[in-house]
Amino acid sequence: MKIVNEQIAIDGIDKIILRQLMDDARKPILEIARQVGISGAAIHQRLRKLEKSGLITGSKFTIDPKILGYNTMAFIGIYLDRAMSNPKAVKQLEEIPEVLECHYTTGNWSIFIKILCKNNEHLMHLLNKKVQAIDGVSRTETFISLNQQIERQIQI
Amino acid sequence: MKIVNEQIAIDGIDKIILRQLMDDARKPILEIARQVGISGAAIHQRLRKLEKSGLITGSKFTIDPKILGYNTMAFIGIYLDRAMSNPKAVKQLEEIPEVLECHYTTGNWSIFIKILCKNNEHLMHLLNKKVQAIDGVSRTETFISLNQQIERQIQI
Amino acid sequence: MKIVNEQIAIDGIDKIILRQLMDDARKPILEIARQVGISGAAIHQRLRKLEKSGLITGSKFTIDPKILGYNTMAFIGIYLDRAMSNPKAVKQLEEIPEVLECHYTTGNWSIFIKILCKNNEHLMHLLNKKVQAIDGVSRTETFISLNQQIERQIQI
Amino acid sequence: MKIVNEQIAIDGIDKIILRQLMDDARKPILEIARQVGISGAAIHQRLRKLEKSGLITGSKFTIDPKILGYNTMAFIGIYLDRAMSNPKAVKQLEEIPEVLECHYTTGNWSIFIKILCKNNEHLMHLLNKKVQAIDGVSRTETFISLNQQIERQIQI
Amino acid sequence: MKIVNEQIAIDGIDKIILRQLMDDARKPILEIARQVGISGAAIHQRLRKLEKSGLITGSKFTIDPKILGYNTMAFIGIYLDRAMSNPKAVKQLEEIPEVLECHYTTGNWSIFIKILCKNNEHLMHLLNKKVQAIDGVSRTETFISLNQQIERQIQI
Amino acid sequence: MKIVNEQIAIDGIDKIILRQLMDDARKPILEIARQVGISGAAIHQRLRKLEKSGLITGSKFTIDPKILGYNTMAFIGIYLDRAMSNPKAVKQLEEIPEVLECHYTTGNWSIFIKILCKNNEHLMHLLNKKVQAIDGVSRTETFISLNQQIERQIQI
Amino acid sequence: MKIVNEQIAIDGIDKIILRQLMDDARKPILEIARQVGISGAAIHQRLRKLEKSGLITGSKFTIDPKILGYNTMAFIGIYLDRAMSNPKAVKQLEEIPEVLECHYTTGNWSIFIKILCKNNEHLMHLLNKKVQAIDGVSRTETFISLNQQIERQIQI
Amino acid sequence: MKIVNEQIAIDGIDKIILRQLMDDARKPILEIARQVGISGAAIHQRLRKLEKSGLITGSKFTIDPKILGYNTMAFIGIYLDRAMSNPKAVKQLEEIPEVLECHYTTGNWSIFIKILCKNNEHLMHLLNKKVQAIDGVSRTETFISLNQQIERQIQI
Repeated sequence: MKIVNEQIAIDGIDKIILRQLMDDARKPILEIARQVGISGAAIHQRLRKLEKSGLITGSKFTIDPKILGYNTMAFIGIYLDRAMSNPKAVKQLEEIPEVLECHYTTGNWSIFIKILCKNNEHLMHLLNKKVQAIDGVSRTETFISLNQQIERQIQI
Repeated sequence: MKIVNEQIAIDGIDKIILRQLMDDARKPILEIARQVGISGAAIHQRLRKLEKSGLITGSKFTIDPKILGYNTMAFIGIYLDRAMSNPKAVKQLEEIPEVLECHYTTGNWSIFIKILCKNNEHLMHLLNKKVQAIDGVSRTETFISLNQQIERQIQI
Repeated sequence: MKIVNEQIAIDGIDKIILRQLMDDARKPILEIARQVGISGAAIHQRLRKLEKSGLITGSKFTIDPKILGYNTMAFIGIYLDRAMSNPKAVKQLEEIPEVLECHYTTGNWSIFIKILCKNNEHLMHLLNKKVQAIDGVSRTETFISLNQQIERQIQI
Repeated sequence: MKIVNEQIAIDGIDKIILRQLMDDARKPILEIARQVGISGAAIHQRLRKLEKSGLITGSKFTIDPKILGYNTMAFIGIYLDRAMSNPKAVKQLEEIPEVLECHYTTGNWSIFIKILCKNNEHLMHLLNKKVQAIDGVSRTETFISLNQQIERQIQI
Repeated sequence: MKIVNEQIAIDGIDKIILRQLMDDARKPILEIARQVGISGAAIHQRLRKLEKSGLITGSKFTIDPKILGYNTMAFIGIYLDRAMSNPKAVKQLEEIPEVLECHYTTGNWSIFIKILCKNNEHLMHLLNKKVQAIDGVSRTETFISLNQQIERQIQI
Repeated sequence: MKIVNEQIAIDGIDKIILRQLMDDARKPILEIARQVGISGAAIHQRLRKLEKSGLITGSKFTIDPKILGYNTMAFIGIYLDRAMSNPKAVKQLEEIPEVLECHYTTGNWSIFIKILCKNNEHLMHLLNKKVQAIDGVSRTETFISLNQQIERQIQI
Repeated sequence: MKIVNEQIAIDGIDKIILRQLMDDARKPILEIARQVGISGAAIHQRLRKLEKSGLITGSKFTIDPKILGYNTMAFIGIYLDRAMSNPKAVKQLEEIPEVLECHYTTGNWSIFIKILCKNNEHLMHLLNKKVQAIDGVSRTETFISLNQQIERQIQI
Repeated sequence: MKIVNEQIAIDGIDKIILRQLMDDARKPILEIARQVGISGAAIHQRLRKLEKSGLITGSKFTIDPKILGYNTMAFIGIYLDRAMSNPKAVKQLEEIPEVLECHYTTGNWSIFIKILCKNNEHLMHLLNKKVQAIDGVSRTETFISLNQQIERQIQI
């Protein structure tokens, strides 16, 4: 176990650039350049620096899963027979595409996942046929998100 | 309450385009065009259709919050005195920038949030001074993500 | 508090008649009469006796609520501030037409209800605007029926 | 998994007819016809349409189980060793006539049942000799309905 | 399963006699006779009737276990692996003299016992070496009575 | 707070005498004397010593409450608003004759009681009208004894 | 909130010295000097460095509280009405000398304390008269340490 | 099991001496002697008496583990498959140097430990690779101390 001090110095101009691209990844660099009042080349240089530091990890299009019929988001706390089976269980969870997040957590569950399903029946199908079929899973505790009001990245 | 059938038809080419941009929002359209074997204009047209349908909701740069010193992710189940205060509580949670997600859930909590803090002390500070200071919050139940193994969008 | 011994004697012919009508309330009495081998008048007499005894409480058409769009059945355990408010709370629950059953139960809830909603959003709406708006309700614990496999009356 | 839009259009006259028959399945059609002001044949036609749509699922006599000595209604949350055994467990629950309802639910139980017994001793007998004898059942959590105040179908 | 109506008629004089003997089993019958104003023989006759009815089950000297060093009373909820093992587990609990009561209960435990120990260490010894050594016991949940304020028989 | 060493020395003959009277309080002293082989006077002397030491606290007739129609024994964990109200709450519990035991316990309840009722309805009545009407009682958790297999005093 | 990197470099000789003094604070420095093979002055210099770095915080005699009659160690999870009252509650807990540790913790309690009492009655007294008398304390959950097998400082 | 009355008589001067040494184990005896107004020899004699009585168990340097990078203190409730495995499990816990305390407790856990880790990742590593690897450990429940406000010995 090694702890590296990964904190980096980013200045106000970095922040302005980042906030705009965190909001719209396809925003033309020149438009940002005009706004900030520095050259496009300078912005490219700063982005390269931020990528190298590891702060920028990539960019992505975001979609609304409801348009594809995914209406039921649920959280599932998973109890494992023996926590030793954690890494294996995670590998199998990775093969369920509906599992969007997976955490080891404090508290009474071994593993805690976020899952996005088409509807309640689909959730039941995934629970019974996929999640609970994983070796070592002894019990699950499911709660459904009836509504999500906040969804955002950390503000910089 | 009205239920609209929001499911749309997307074909295989839409999927190939989307998967690439969900992976890298800044990928040049022409590069995708070459790969798929249709014109860039056709891709732009498809993207416009997908945006209009509501499937594409935007694009964003993604960052690694650890580089900024955010090392402690936690989930907090919130009990409210009276669930009537739900909308007000959510509004106040929105003003805490470290709160990344907020859900109404089945089960025994009124509200369930995901929060990203610099460290355990920062978490305690947010719990004591911000979350529990919200009117109507009677009790919270916190669990810390010791490690996150999966983090992804739904696969299309 | 008075305990009356309400058990009555019903014979095998009563049972055959009842089972048929519990299965199909509109079955012609004469058809049953032919089957059992007694007169229609005798069956009418037996039905009058069973009604008088209180065993037969009525008859009803049954419908499939899914056809009307009711897809989410949920159970809600309700904690009241003070159990003294039980009767008042029940009165208000009666005014929510989606509440199909209401029980006082042992265990840790004050009241336990079965509710039938169109979908998860409808459930959230009822929870937030109706159930939790009832005076004395301090907290609720909801769980959704993902699938119902058995639904029947007691066998006689 | 297939989602069919099962919602149908029913008009005000359908509703009046249904409400009366949901209240009393043996009410003479002609009496309803007089009340509604259309012919008995028209009512029969509407009923056939509602049956065909799947809305009307049948009719039944209802009985008061207390008259037969069934005084203890209980709910049992069942934990299964491995949720994989769900379908098998449900099959065995079906063979216990006192089990009136059976659900897969969110929350911490695998299966949730409603059971109607003669008295507390009968409940214990069913728990120990029938429910807990089912292969895969590791633990049960029982709560008794001390009183039921609401029992009805969804209102149309 | 058979339910006999075991309730008997006892009159006011029966009650006076019983209350005195439930308070002091060695109270001379003649003293009670004088008080009630009937003969000792009549009292003996009434006692025989009450014994025959099953109401009087015996008499006993009561002792203060604290004088013998029994200072820690505890309640233990026992989870069994499979409830099928209930009767066997009870038999083994009977062989632990410190177990004063044993119940099958609703709720989440299989068996619930009252145990009287000399002190906390003695309790731990019984838990670890006796109770948890019983075949089928998977888990126990103990709570200690810090003080008992009420201890009495039902009033007649 | 003072701890007195209340343990006393009782010899084998004391034990034989006590065991017999703990089994049957009305057993003639002379019969015991004959059995033990010492004089009745010696036994009376020993009993006086044991009474003086506080070990013998009295004697009582025992009755079978089922004969009086008391068929439902339940345990109730009581949460108080503020534990400060403990002594007052206990006083009010004492006025409910069906409450047979009352304990302060470790764990999550403030007070834990044993209650003996005629039936489940009676239990509900006591819960709603008596126990939960006590000032400071915020919530109760009830579990019913479906069957009691052990009921005895500590063995000496 | 500021995070200082407080880790210091300590070498093998520092560790040998510290381990001996962590085991016996009154061990003569000269004895340690002889063992390590450096001068007493050098050891004093190292100790001053370790004190200055903040690693050594002091020294203390340790006592066995059982000799003073403290036999019951308990842990108490405290729920506060509003977590805002945390700092005030802690101040009042500080005035109870039997409270040895006090933590803000994740999970469902607001505050978690370790308390050392003479016996179970003393614990009840502290719970009822001191801990639960603190303004804002709504509920406590107590569990008693029946036996402690490990008690040590972190190994260096 | 034997209970010895270990309470000893210590007078006011003993207390003054002890309090000073419990605060600073290296305080010169002569300085204490001057303060108390008795000879150093008398103090040495008293200390020998207190050591012989078992009250003084030793002395130790105390360190601040944060200086060594130990920033995450956690409590872990451990459920064992079968409590019979308690002693073996404790032996294995002893071999994990980060485990500072280990208790058998009432409540629902078999074993309760205090553990001091460098950070949350270290905690997860210990949980997954050490604690949960112990034979018989079926499940753990972890909560992290976000802040410790009180840490002291019992006051004499």
